Amino acid sequence: MKTISENKAFGGVQGVYTHMSDACGCEMTFAVYLPPQAQEGPVPCLWYLSGLTCTHENAMTKAGMQAHAAEFGLALVFPDTSPRGDDIANDDAYDLGQGAGFYVNATEAPWGPHFQMETYIASELRDLVTENFAVSVHHGITGHSMGGHGALTLAMKYPGHYQSLSAFAPISNPANSDWGRKQLGAYLGADETLWPAHDASMLLRDKGWVGDVLVDQGADDQFFDLLKASALSDALIETKTAHCYRLQEGYDHSYYFVSTFARDHVAWHAERLKG
Amino acid sequence: MKTISENKAFGGVQGVYTHMSDACGCEMTFAVYLPPQAQEGPVPCLWYLSGLTCTHENAMTKAGMQAHAAEFGLALVFPDTSPRGDDIANDDAYDLGQGAGFYVNATEAPWGPHFQMETYIASELRDLVTENFAVSVHHGITGHSMGGHGALTLAMKYPGHYQSLSAFAPISNPANSDWGRKQLGAYLGADETLWPAHDASMLLRDKGWVGDVLVDQGADDQFFDLLKASALSDALIETKTAHCYRLQEGYDHSYYFVSTFARDHVAWHAERLKG
Repeated sequence: MKTISENKAFGGVQGVYTHMSDACGCEMTFAVYLPPQAQEGPVPCLWYLSGLTCTHENAMTKAGMQAHAAEFGLALVFPDTSPRGDDIANDDAYDLGQGAGFYVNATEAPWGPHFQMETYIASELRDLVTENFAVSVHHGITGHSMGGHGALTLAMKYPGHYQSLSAFAPISNPANSDWGRKQLGAYLGADETLWPAHDASMLLRDKGWVGDVLVDQGADDQFFDLLKASALSDALIETKTAHCYRLQEGYDHSYYFVSTFARDHVAWHAERLKG
Repeated sequence: MKTISENKAFGGVQGVYTHMSDACGCEMTFAVYLPPQAQEGPVPCLWYLSGLTCTHENAMTKAGMQAHAAEFGLALVFPDTSPRGDDIANDDAYDLGQGAGFYVNATEAPWGPHFQMETYIASELRDLVTENFAVSVHHGITGHSMGGHGALTLAMKYPGHYQSLSAFAPISNPANSDWGRKQLGAYLGADETLWPAHDASMLLRDKGWVGDVLVDQGADDQFFDLLKASALSDALIETKTAHCYRLQEGYDHSYYFVSTFARDHVAWHAERLKG
């Protein structure tokens, strides 16, 4: 693991690191924020998964979460959204390939060898962060858009890995949306019976989530239809999953939306991870 | 004036606008954040001047100030740092020309025709913002690095324009620093007797500032020597200007430093503009 930068922020340290990933077969960049409380001992850890086109940097720079992490005593992890490099498969579209890993393990060519983001996030980077930073065994997960899909699906796929869950404007039903069908088809193949295992609304009906979940969704989100927001709210209600689903009047899909509600999400996770 | 984008943020609106500037002779971009309180009537207005290489976008995206502006009921204005365009003079160096206007009115070729940032900020954009947004007559000014220099010098050059003043890691004594001598020489000419009128530490001794001032400076600032921090703290003490000068242990020159202390600055201005 190599340190790219460390900046003091809100009494803690915002760091950026690289490491050679076995899962993705390339060098990966990620960011960790350690709050001042980490100087006294391990703190709970909140994972933030980013959306299409993002790197580790977007939320680290624009979500304003460090202030809240310092207030509530949580570490933050900001992973990248895909493997990257000149030797790694890519696509001209913004929503496939590099920057668009969709948090699944690809089985299909040309993606298979490197696009193993599910294993990377849920296992490899988790182990690396736990071993190298002052974080406890209590982990929560959240994310925005494609990262909201990642947070919801990984939480349900890996019972016991995450004790708290939330999402900002998540891609909610990718098996039935143009934000999902293209990518699940490319990464997992044309057999659609394999897709529900990677679809938050379907997973909720199949496996369920042991805890409660907080979801914020902008009412003026320019990608509202692609996100299939109502599929998730329907599934949450019909499965009687404890939740707080908030449709926020006037907010769009941008980081102005995420940053506005970031404190509520950090507080939500802190209450569950520290309680 | 043309609206480029408007996003709801913290109950208010973060907008980006362009207009044809008479002072700069080109189209200029600026950003205004209106807090939710502006829906009820005019609110005080805090100007944030950015540093070298920045546009209107850096602080708008990375400083996290909208949350605090909404909390305290202030509008925020984020101007650009210079005129811009293919037809506008420029220099290959990052610290001269476009992105480095230094908040002065250039008299020398090739800068004179467009680099009129002092008049642009203190008069033209001020009038435009006051006429087009729900802001009151109470204005404060702050800034980072080159923008800290701009805030300090404009506040002293234009008595009555600004009722509150602060700065983040300001360029404090440009007439005696490599961050300043090159630019003042280029924009104002080789006659150094003209420079003190644009140097915060010298202006403070010459004209003074009617109010008090808050300054934050990172102790681990990588540009500490170029900023000439002690020239300002010396001048503040020797002129008996009421102030709060904070050297912040471990902080560098980045927006992690600015965002960490942004709430204190917004609160400082709010107390003085609303009190």
